[in-house]
Amino acid sequence: MTENNWTVGIDIGATKIEVAGIDRNGNVLHHIRRKTNTGSSAEAIESGTADAVRELMRTIGTRPVAAGVGMAGQIDPLQGVVVFSPNLDWHNVPLRKGLAAKLGMPVAVTNDVRAATWGEWLYGAGRGYDDMVCVFVGTGIGGGVVSHGAMLTGCSNTAGEIGHITIDINGPVCTCRNKGCLEALAGGWAIARDAQNAVADNPVAGTAMLELADGDPKNITAKVVAMAAQKGDALALQLVERVSGALVAGAVSLVHAFNPCLLVFGGGVIEGLPGLVGSIDYGIRSRALGAAIINLKVVRSQLHSHAGVIGAAAFANHSFRDKGDTV
Amino acid sequence: MTENNWTVGIDIGATKIEVAGIDRNGNVLHHIRRKTNTGSSAEAIESGTADAVRELMRTIGTRPVAAGVGMAGQIDPLQGVVVFSPNLDWHNVPLRKGLAAKLGMPVAVTNDVRAATWGEWLYGAGRGYDDMVCVFVGTGIGGGVVSHGAMLTGCSNTAGEIGHITIDINGPVCTCRNKGCLEALAGGWAIARDAQNAVADNPVAGTAMLELADGDPKNITAKVVAMAAQKGDALALQLVERVSGALVAGAVSLVHAFNPCLLVFGGGVIEGLPGLVGSIDYGIRSRALGAAIINLKVVRSQLHSHAGVIGAAAFANHSFRDKGDTV
Repeated sequence: MTENNWTVGIDIGATKIEVAGIDRNGNVLHHIRRKTNTGSSAEAIESGTADAVRELMRTIGTRPVAAGVGMAGQIDPLQGVVVFSPNLDWHNVPLRKGLAAKLGMPVAVTNDVRAATWGEWLYGAGRGYDDMVCVFVGTGIGGGVVSHGAMLTGCSNTAGEIGHITIDINGPVCTCRNKGCLEALAGGWAIARDAQNAVADNPVAGTAMLELADGDPKNITAKVVAMAAQKGDALALQLVERVSGALVAGAVSLVHAFNPCLLVFGGGVIEGLPGLVGSIDYGIRSRALGAAIINLKVVRSQLHSHAGVIGAAAFANHSFRDKGDTV
Repeated sequence: MTENNWTVGIDIGATKIEVAGIDRNGNVLHHIRRKTNTGSSAEAIESGTADAVRELMRTIGTRPVAAGVGMAGQIDPLQGVVVFSPNLDWHNVPLRKGLAAKLGMPVAVTNDVRAATWGEWLYGAGRGYDDMVCVFVGTGIGGGVVSHGAMLTGCSNTAGEIGHITIDINGPVCTCRNKGCLEALAGGWAIARDAQNAVADNPVAGTAMLELADGDPKNITAKVVAMAAQKGDALALQLVERVSGALVAGAVSLVHAFNPCLLVFGGGVIEGLPGLVGSIDYGIRSRALGAAIINLKVVRSQLHSHAGVIGAAAFANHSFRDKGDTV
C-alpha cells in the first residue's frame, strides 16, 4: 500500500463516533468505534475524534489523502461549519477548521444523509448513474438527489429534505411543526407512534407486539413492528401496509419531481423490512405517470453497517480529489 | 436589424397556433395567431405553421437564426419528436424534422411548460438565478426546475411533473388515475369540480357564481370562481382558500425537494387570482424548514400573454446558440 490511496471516513452520531479507513473502491480497511460523550464540549469531541484517526493511521501504517465527516444536522459544507446539530446541541461549530488543524490534512464536512448518498453514488447501488434519488428511512427520513451527474445542493444546501415533503395535507403533525410530512407517516418515530396507539386501542390484537416490547406499550418501536410483521402478526402487517402506502406516495412525488433513473431505499426501517422495497416498486408502477418510469429502477441501498463512514469518505474524495480519479 | 439576431417562437395549442419573432432580449418583434384546425393531419398543421413562419419572416424582413416549438404533451427533445400530444391526438410525430425541412432552419421542440420555464429563466422572473422552480397553474399544473444553473430533464425528460406530486394521500382521483395529486386539488379543472359541487350543495351561497355562469352550474369554471372571489363572494373565497392551502402544501414539498432560491408562480389560475402568490409565500414561511427558505423568494411569472412563444424561442436559443451568447 502506497501513501495517499485511502481516505478517512468519520461518522459522528448521537451514540457513537465511527472512524474508518476507506480505499479507493469504497472498501473498509479498518474501523474504530467509540461512544459519543454527549456531555462533552465540541472541542473535546473533536479531540477524541482526532485521537481515533491517529490510531487508525497507526494501524493502517500510511497517511490518508483527506478526511470526510458526516453528521446529522444543518451543515455549511463550503465553510465546514456545523450550523446546528440537534443530537449534540452544537451551534456554529467550525468542525473542518478544528479537525484539519489537529490532523494536518484536508477535511470535508457534510450532512450524514448527504454523505450516505455520496456513498451509494460512488461505491454502492448508484454507481454509474447520473440521475438518482436516495431515500433513507430511519427514525426520521432523509435523502439525497443526483441529477445530471451532480449532487443537488440547492440555494442553502438543503436540497433533498425529502422527509418533509407533504403527502397528507390533513395528516398528523410532524416534528418540524408542519402537517402530513412523509416522515410523519413513515419515519421510525411515526411508525412507533401509530403502533403504540393501535396497541392501546386493541391490546388483544397487539399481543405479539406487546410481548416483544416486554409488556410496555411505550417500548414499542419501529423495530418491534418490523419483527412482529416478519412473524406474520396481523396488526403489525396492517401498520406496515400503511407505511408502504405513505412511502409509495412519497416515492411517486419524487419520481415526478426528479424523474430519476434509480430510486434507492435504505435506512433502519428498510433494513428491518426489506420487503418494503418490492411493494414500493409495485406501488410506484401502478400510480406514477408512465413516461416518468420508463427507465426507473427501484432498489435497496448496498452500503449497510458502514454506510456512514464510507459516505463521509466518498464526500471527501469528491471534495479533494480529481473527480475522474475516483468515480 | 441584421440577420440572425432573432428567433422564431412557436406555440402549438389545442385552440390556436401562435408564431412570433423574438429578439435576443426576449421581446416580441411581431406575432401571428391562427386557429388550430384540430381535425387536420399533423402534416397539414406543420404546413400551416410553416406558412405562418414565412409570413412572419416577410414582415420582419430578415431570416431568424432558428425556431423553437412548445406544445403540450410528451416530447422527446433530443429527437424533436412529439411522442404523444393529447390535445391533437398526435403519436410519434417527427415535428422537428418536418418543420426543419419546410423552413430550412434548425428547429427545437419541447413541452409547453418546459418552454415557459425557459422563458422565465432567460427573459422573465428567473433572470440570473441558478436555482429556480416554476409552477404553472392552469387547467392542469405543470412546471420546470433549474438547479445548479441547468434545466433538469431527468431520466426520461419528465423532471418537473409537479402537478402530479401527491399532497393528499386520501384525496380525490386525478386525471392521471392516482389520488390526491396537487393538480387534483388546485388545478383549474379541480377548482371547477369543487365549485360545481359546492354550488350544488348550497345554491343560495352559490348565487354569485351561478349568475356569472349564466345560471348553469356546469358553466362554473376556475375563472368564474376567481371573478366571484375578486368581488368578495364568501363561497368563492372559501374555495380559493382551499386552493391556496393545496398550493402551499405543494410548494413546501418543492422547497424541500429542490431548495430553490426562487419560486415562480404563473398560469391562468394565478393570473385570475394574483393575490394567491402572497398567501402561498406566507404559507411556505409558516410551514417550511427554516434552513430551506433562508434565501427563498416567491414571485409571479413575468411573461404573460406571450409566454408560450417567448419560451419556445428561449429553448431554441439554448439549443442552438452558444449559451454565453444568450443568457
